[in-house]
Amino acid sequence: MKVYGDLQSGNCLKVKMLLSFLSIEHDWIDVNILAGETKTAAFLSKNPNGKIPAVELDDGRYLCESNAILGYFAENTPLLPTDIYMKAKVYEWLFFEQYSHEPFIAVARFIQKYLDMPKARMDEHASLQEGGNKALQLMENQLSETQYLVGDEMTIADISLYAYTHVADEGGFDLNRYPDIQSWCRRIQSTSGYVGMA
Amino acid sequence: MKVYGDLQSGNCLKVKMLLSFLSIEHDWIDVNILAGETKTAAFLSKNPNGKIPAVELDDGRYLCESNAILGYFAENTPLLPTDIYMKAKVYEWLFFEQYSHEPFIAVARFIQKYLDMPKARMDEHASLQEGGNKALQLMENQLSETQYLVGDEMTIADISLYAYTHVADEGGFDLNRYPDIQSWCRRIQSTSGYVGMA
Repeated sequence: MKVYGDLQSGNCLKVKMLLSFLSIEHDWIDVNILAGETKTAAFLSKNPNGKIPAVELDDGRYLCESNAILGYFAENTPLLPTDIYMKAKVYEWLFFEQYSHEPFIAVARFIQKYLDMPKARMDEHASLQEGGNKALQLMENQLSETQYLVGDEMTIADISLYAYTHVADEGGFDLNRYPDIQSWCRRIQSTSGYVGMA
Repeated sequence: MKVYGDLQSGNCLKVKMLLSFLSIEHDWIDVNILAGETKTAAFLSKNPNGKIPAVELDDGRYLCESNAILGYFAENTPLLPTDIYMKAKVYEWLFFEQYSHEPFIAVARFIQKYLDMPKARMDEHASLQEGGNKALQLMENQLSETQYLVGDEMTIADISLYAYTHVADEGGFDLNRYPDIQSWCRRIQSTSGYVGMA
């Protein structure tokens, strides 16, 4: 099995973390977004949407969208509940991540860390702070009640949200405002099999 | 069971369509976003993220995020495959919808149809056209090969993507450029149990 990704991308880190927690062997193939490697004809034949991560299964079939990949490998493991309501709560967090969290926190981080805050995007960076902090506050509220986002066991909801949350400071977000998020990050980091960003 | 929503919202329509296709009885409670009804303390106790749709199950538990709601009710029905790879492909489209489709097409439609194109947002409306057309083209490519987005049977991927696609013209997108999308829309509309927008 091959995984195409970049370990500085939170979306890719999610997949790396999951495969490590589950001890699933794979070849990791580095893809450089900034060098245009997701827009080549060869890569678009793997994922027509031109995004990483992308997984090539042993039978040659592909799977994309980081959170769909998490769901695929977590099925029938302790990282995805079998109870239908609890499973839906996990997916609720996964969709929250892609709509209400990543577009603020990952984009602010990209502008600050990778583009080094160009003047033309400083207003955008500032405008992302409110939405990012709203997402972090919703996580903080949940984590003040439960050890993990869905109950007291780690699921793929935690892996997905952890990816960009633990580096949110690189997008201008002050994690000192969120003590329960910080405890939760340490809990994940001390889990057997944990791997971090490149 | 109660569903809080607005039938002019595609995200809410998804839930209405699914419950109708599956003949699941429910009370529909209209919530007016523009009047601020998703930001009241009463509503935030149902969904702290302040968004519709939100489902209140008979036991008083809540479920939010339109696509997570689809997954919850579709489990163990023909609308969600049991094959683990096919199920993951359905979720791939659901995440695509929330990240690469809705933020372009639904937002352009909101600016054009509900806000009546205020000058202050005309540049934003124009900037959303490229991303929206890219999403529609990816759907068109898939629908030129299969009757539905994941194979030749309707799944919740189709319900989810249909919601904002069939009214994409209200956001300035020309569906005449996508004949296979148009055939697919007609296929969904002629399915027993179909309900449309208010």
